[in-house]
Amino acid sequence: MPHDPIALASQLIACDSITPARGAVFDALEEMLVPLGFAVERFVAGEAPDGPVENLLAVRGAGGRHFAFAGHLDVVPPGDGWASDPFAPTLRGGLLHGRGAVDMKGAIAAFVAALAGLEQVDGTISLIITGDEEGPAIHGTRALIARMAERGLHPDLCLIGEPTSVARLGDMVKIGRRGSVNMWISVPGVQGHVAYPHLADNPIPKLVRILAAIEAIHLDDGTDWFQPSNIEVTDLTVGNPATNVIPAAAHARLSIRFNALHRGEDLVARIRAVLAAEAPDATLKAQVSGEAFLSQPGPLSDLVGNAIEARLGIRPDLSTTGGTSDARFLSALCPVIEFGLPNATMHKLDEAAAVEDLQMLTLIYRDIVAQALR
Amino acid sequence: MPHDPIALASQLIACDSITPARGAVFDALEEMLVPLGFAVERFVAGEAPDGPVENLLAVRGAGGRHFAFAGHLDVVPPGDGWASDPFAPTLRGGLLHGRGAVDMKGAIAAFVAALAGLEQVDGTISLIITGDEEGPAIHGTRALIARMAERGLHPDLCLIGEPTSVARLGDMVKIGRRGSVNMWISVPGVQGHVAYPHLADNPIPKLVRILAAIEAIHLDDGTDWFQPSNIEVTDLTVGNPATNVIPAAAHARLSIRFNALHRGEDLVARIRAVLAAEAPDATLKAQVSGEAFLSQPGPLSDLVGNAIEARLGIRPDLSTTGGTSDARFLSALCPVIEFGLPNATMHKLDEAAAVEDLQMLTLIYRDIVAQALR
Repeated sequence: MPHDPIALASQLIACDSITPARGAVFDALEEMLVPLGFAVERFVAGEAPDGPVENLLAVRGAGGRHFAFAGHLDVVPPGDGWASDPFAPTLRGGLLHGRGAVDMKGAIAAFVAALAGLEQVDGTISLIITGDEEGPAIHGTRALIARMAERGLHPDLCLIGEPTSVARLGDMVKIGRRGSVNMWISVPGVQGHVAYPHLADNPIPKLVRILAAIEAIHLDDGTDWFQPSNIEVTDLTVGNPATNVIPAAAHARLSIRFNALHRGEDLVARIRAVLAAEAPDATLKAQVSGEAFLSQPGPLSDLVGNAIEARLGIRPDLSTTGGTSDARFLSALCPVIEFGLPNATMHKLDEAAAVEDLQMLTLIYRDIVAQALR
Repeated sequence: MPHDPIALASQLIACDSITPARGAVFDALEEMLVPLGFAVERFVAGEAPDGPVENLLAVRGAGGRHFAFAGHLDVVPPGDGWASDPFAPTLRGGLLHGRGAVDMKGAIAAFVAALAGLEQVDGTISLIITGDEEGPAIHGTRALIARMAERGLHPDLCLIGEPTSVARLGDMVKIGRRGSVNMWISVPGVQGHVAYPHLADNPIPKLVRILAAIEAIHLDDGTDWFQPSNIEVTDLTVGNPATNVIPAAAHARLSIRFNALHRGEDLVARIRAVLAAEAPDATLKAQVSGEAFLSQPGPLSDLVGNAIEARLGIRPDLSTTGGTSDARFLSALCPVIEFGLPNATMHKLDEAAAVEDLQMLTLIYRDIVAQALR
């Protein structure tokens, strides 16, 4: 069975591809795609510290409707304590063990197996595969999107194989993601001895006022498709070892996960306004990791939902929960949906995908492509 | 001039006695005191990490009124960058340079020179000298007080030679000190991913509520002799390097300098009540470094004030400002006053005392003892 997803996944897992991925794992994927009639373009983008990153764009056909699979070949570091070598794929108890089995070499193997088993279809099929989704993701899918624009490639639908299932395969797909912004607040003060506070200026009370005002912010109550936006203060730093010293500065870090009612820069402006009101000499650094997006439920989610229901008899929840993914970038191209394996073991020791799930995922992916290009 | 305070101070400075002081510097002082008729008792108290500490108790006479000088022979580390060797006393520009010139070997030299120049007096004179005032101060003056109780020694008045003068010699004496208590607050939480806040429990908002409530506390408006009590938050610690992680715990440290309207344990109870109200699972560790005390202005402060005014033509401010000193312990024995050199260079590079000030301080100390035992 040359296009058994288990065998294909095993070949990919056997290539150590801790983020950012380069070389062998891309060679393996290219060797799988070329015999299927794909034109494969590989390129390296970026420089240290956020690169270099390898990317792969594979295209078959031209014109007509254009369906894209997207994903990543890099994996997070395995850590110590695995029952078997994380880069030696191992079948045990109906499970394929190995780093990336779930996130997401298993899904990429299922892409390939699905395309191998696909009857002749019209239109265009592409694979948008990066070697940096788990890392900074600066020169990965974003570079692929730019390359696609140069090549005049404009998908109509995109399915990302991230592991979105929770308790069982097909119980959840993602039709959007919250946005994410991190902010670093610094409040300057004047150092001094606690016995002479009038000669010092303690920055901590100012920071406490800022944080209390931030905690009082209510961003929204959520939407039909999104949880409420949420602010978390994730770190406080002063670094003052001396009990009798008033410190010279105090720092805090925030992370806001926000729904499509907000844009990152507006949230930054809102926090800036808090600083201006509570401590005008405080400074703010901000980094928007991704904007919120939503692919409105419609033909694409129906297509995927129907394919899942036909094979598994359950209807997936349409979710926007969880962290960010490359869907934040791809959503600029076309409607995007994320659907993949159960995610219980992703990023964990002894990551493993059920053989049965990999086989079923292959069939569902095949049905989706066939239906999308009908 | 065998009892020139400059020569005596130089002998003491020449003995490196970074806290805790042992050995040579005590030998030097003993050799100065024995010829003046003092019975000198030296003993070592305590064990690591707060000891061992050397102490010296010198007594001349018996019965009648009892006047005590108190002070310390240990010094803080000199640090790098002195114009001359900090333990090689150097006269330059009318100033005696060396670590401890001001805090407080200069004053101890002035004690000795004053006693050498004193005409015959009735009563008892003692010197209560420790080798650990700048360090933990656990086995220093407290051990001396215990030893004095064993010996049946009960001073009526005590003068500590700490450098209390500010702009010029005699402009300030201290008749009390604020108390000091440090507290460490820890708020536990449950670590988690910022994208799944419902699975985590962020301790930082709780800590912010605690700190906001503490900042809102108004302890008092001060008294006739004390500044208002003051709370400073001196450190915040979370130690979370990951922008997408809700931390497992958050910590803060407070320092309260309080006047004689409060006792340390009452302030600890007050902060505990804030924790109980805002975050019942938060924990508090507290350490009372010293209680506030006041030697009510009266005969002792009049005596010292008159002696200063007679020599210098100025009346000292009676102050309770600044950090803690061994006066917090000695105040349990008898009325205590602190009077010494200008403190501009104490604990700093190129610490130096004016020759003129050392000579004048000797005369004033002599007048004070003579008057006290008249």
